[in-house]
Amino acid sequence: MALDQVRTSDETVLETLANWAAEVSADWPDVAVDRAARAFEDTIACMIAGADDLSPVKTRKGIANWGTGTSTVVGQSAGAPAPWAAMANGAAAHALDYDDNVTIVLGHTSAVQVPALLALGELTGASGRQLIDAYIVGFEIQMALGRGVNWSHYNIGWHSTSTIIEIGTAGACARLLGLDRAGMAHAMSLATSMACGPKAQFGSMAKSFHAGLAAQHAVTSAQLAEAGLEGRMEVLEAPMGFLELFGGNFPPGWENALDGFGDKLAILEYGVIPKRHPCCASTHKCLDAVIDLRNEHGFSAGDVESVHTTVGSSNARNLSYDDPQNDREAKFSMQYCVALGLVQDHLRIADFAPEVVFRPEIRELIPRITMEAFPAEAEKTGTPPDHEVSVRLKDGRVLEATRAHPRGTIHDPLDADDRKAKYIDCVSGKLDDAAAEDLQGLLAAFETVEDLDTIMKFLRFDAG
Amino acid sequence: MALDQVRTSDETVLETLANWAAEVSADWPDVAVDRAARAFEDTIACMIAGADDLSPVKTRKGIANWGTGTSTVVGQSAGAPAPWAAMANGAAAHALDYDDNVTIVLGHTSAVQVPALLALGELTGASGRQLIDAYIVGFEIQMALGRGVNWSHYNIGWHSTSTIIEIGTAGACARLLGLDRAGMAHAMSLATSMACGPKAQFGSMAKSFHAGLAAQHAVTSAQLAEAGLEGRMEVLEAPMGFLELFGGNFPPGWENALDGFGDKLAILEYGVIPKRHPCCASTHKCLDAVIDLRNEHGFSAGDVESVHTTVGSSNARNLSYDDPQNDREAKFSMQYCVALGLVQDHLRIADFAPEVVFRPEIRELIPRITMEAFPAEAEKTGTPPDHEVSVRLKDGRVLEATRAHPRGTIHDPLDADDRKAKYIDCVSGKLDDAAAEDLQGLLAAFETVEDLDTIMKFLRFDAG
Repeated sequence: MALDQVRTSDETVLETLANWAAEVSADWPDVAVDRAARAFEDTIACMIAGADDLSPVKTRKGIANWGTGTSTVVGQSAGAPAPWAAMANGAAAHALDYDDNVTIVLGHTSAVQVPALLALGELTGASGRQLIDAYIVGFEIQMALGRGVNWSHYNIGWHSTSTIIEIGTAGACARLLGLDRAGMAHAMSLATSMACGPKAQFGSMAKSFHAGLAAQHAVTSAQLAEAGLEGRMEVLEAPMGFLELFGGNFPPGWENALDGFGDKLAILEYGVIPKRHPCCASTHKCLDAVIDLRNEHGFSAGDVESVHTTVGSSNARNLSYDDPQNDREAKFSMQYCVALGLVQDHLRIADFAPEVVFRPEIRELIPRITMEAFPAEAEKTGTPPDHEVSVRLKDGRVLEATRAHPRGTIHDPLDADDRKAKYIDCVSGKLDDAAAEDLQGLLAAFETVEDLDTIMKFLRFDAG
Repeated sequence: MALDQVRTSDETVLETLANWAAEVSADWPDVAVDRAARAFEDTIACMIAGADDLSPVKTRKGIANWGTGTSTVVGQSAGAPAPWAAMANGAAAHALDYDDNVTIVLGHTSAVQVPALLALGELTGASGRQLIDAYIVGFEIQMALGRGVNWSHYNIGWHSTSTIIEIGTAGACARLLGLDRAGMAHAMSLATSMACGPKAQFGSMAKSFHAGLAAQHAVTSAQLAEAGLEGRMEVLEAPMGFLELFGGNFPPGWENALDGFGDKLAILEYGVIPKRHPCCASTHKCLDAVIDLRNEHGFSAGDVESVHTTVGSSNARNLSYDDPQNDREAKFSMQYCVALGLVQDHLRIADFAPEVVFRPEIRELIPRITMEAFPAEAEKTGTPPDHEVSVRLKDGRVLEATRAHPRGTIHDPLDADDRKAKYIDCVSGKLDDAAAEDLQGLLAAFETVEDLDTIMKFLRFDAG
């Protein structure tokens, strides 16, 4: 379908997105509301867990230079102006790489959306339901932009979290602020002027900081647009605009982006992907496949001769540490993560503490695990390739499995027990038991929260 | 010369820049100090002139949401935290396109550097001389980055003002804060994660906002690095880093960037280019050539049959309004600017007031003026092409001229009278005569200013 058939007038791509986002009914299907609510639940837990990571700790120290405000900063008692609270909390949400991600966009949607919307929601007195509404709107915009430029955009090296998701979250923030069509479009146009994030930063504190930066930019763009600042409506498709500069080598383009936009909800079709393991999502399909094989065949780590994994080319680029030398590298090591998968059913935050990364029983397994990548051509479209594992046992058996989706996707969702176990992993040691239980109850019913402060007060603990 | 010969160790490109920038002696040659001091003088005047343009007005309204602070915001009495003061003042500095620019980088260096350094300097109690020192350091870094990626970077559509200049200004801010080698490098690495600005925004308020955004990012990066936040040292040359993502189709690369870096000062070799006319720099060579021809041959606008101009391909892309419909478009119209050049010796702010853009005597000339572009290949290197004008008179004479450099470059610098006339054009109607004179005296000796507030107090007028 030609682009001019997708749209009903001569509006720009940005206007098509903005007009829908400013005016769509907030009467969302229950499944959409539930998925968004679970994203707030999961991400707030991740923010608590990550609050004492170096990236948010240093970010909090930095933003302390720029004034106090009424938006909660996780891990400290003093509040901050909304953009800076969003920045620190985004860095915390993404710090442990335990936060969710999303297909097509290929980034960490909630680590940007949730901190940005919470910071702004505290300012406007929003309810949980209003935040969920804004989240769903932001999610749809991100997915449309993702369909326009991915995988090309991601593969060439852009951290979609701080590009595509930032722009979509600016739309979410504009929705929360109740901006009209033009205001919504200007918010996203200004956000396009702030989109950045080279993946060359992976492996440094800047990686999780990118989520915070994106959240800050989203809040900033929306509030500047509310104040009347304007960008160009043609910024996505114009010469020297987003597609040309950020599209990589073979972007699908805007026709693909807008095909079906507003008809079928992406949050229903694709969902959000909460993580079961606190490590790079690129490991998850193989990791889950190894755990499945072990449970099915009953072998132990001592029975294993070798494990071979095959992943997408972007995934392999993300996992560049075959012999990780610290906790941060371990999260981006297929070898380290699969070694743990040979001995336990899920990975936990403690599995990446600096002092356990060199455990001899894990180190013994690491050299037995190999990884190769499919050719890059397999990732031209929005459908990610299945990942493959082959486990060779010492008794000569070879056990093989493929995984199209990791645990956590809508094809194989986390159940209530998974979610509870992850929540406890996140908050233990940060909140006392009573607080942890109270907060869990509130988060489990996030869609009914009327006063955000009932939740945010639990985030103002001292993370040191 | 190979890159590994340019550098003395296995340091990264960023470390090479940072190590120099953190430790170079502040004992600069007088010419360098004078050029930087004049840049502060010129840019502060431009900030005053631009303070009531829509872009800074809306930006000021937006930043009012994010707290008060001690950094001066031009055009209002209340101060703001340093990043937001830098943002509003950057938007003001660039609002009228009267602020300076620089070759090789191909952007508006002082509209970013000056607001960022003033905002931070007020915080640290810096002297004029300390700001000049930081400015010179930032300028050298920008020029090195420009040699690495231009013209390719600019031609593909990046607004160098908010990419290259932003990163260099982060270095300038780090210098002002006295960060060490590592802190300096982290400031610039973090700034690389914030570099953006598609030229598709030209023609909207976002264009001058980009200068403010870059100033905000520079301040933010430096203060976050001071707080200990870190980025990757390899972010310029690594896969998925700055050169790959921002380099365009044929970037010269880092060997070119570092050739001579730190030996010969770019500010001596190239200087800063203050503008004589408040309109797009892409018009200036032809505009000055037309004025020169008129003065030499003594013809009047009524004698002119037609004018034909030939400019670089990027210049032509910047000047897309052959029949401008408002004041903003008029600044990016070769036809409008040359028409004025046929009747007066310099353009002034009042020549772009909305009510004068449709003056019949100018409109009559516009259709007589044409523009064409050299092929893009002429702009592969750092040396811009000469621009050409051909004036056909009604008496049959054809007068031709070329211009390698506009007025304002070191090849044809503004003199004291030019500078004074521009200053008065900028501040009249904003400051009363006594204040204008007092401030001019202070700015003329910017290098001797001990207390920045003696200057900044003049900026806190009410621009409405």
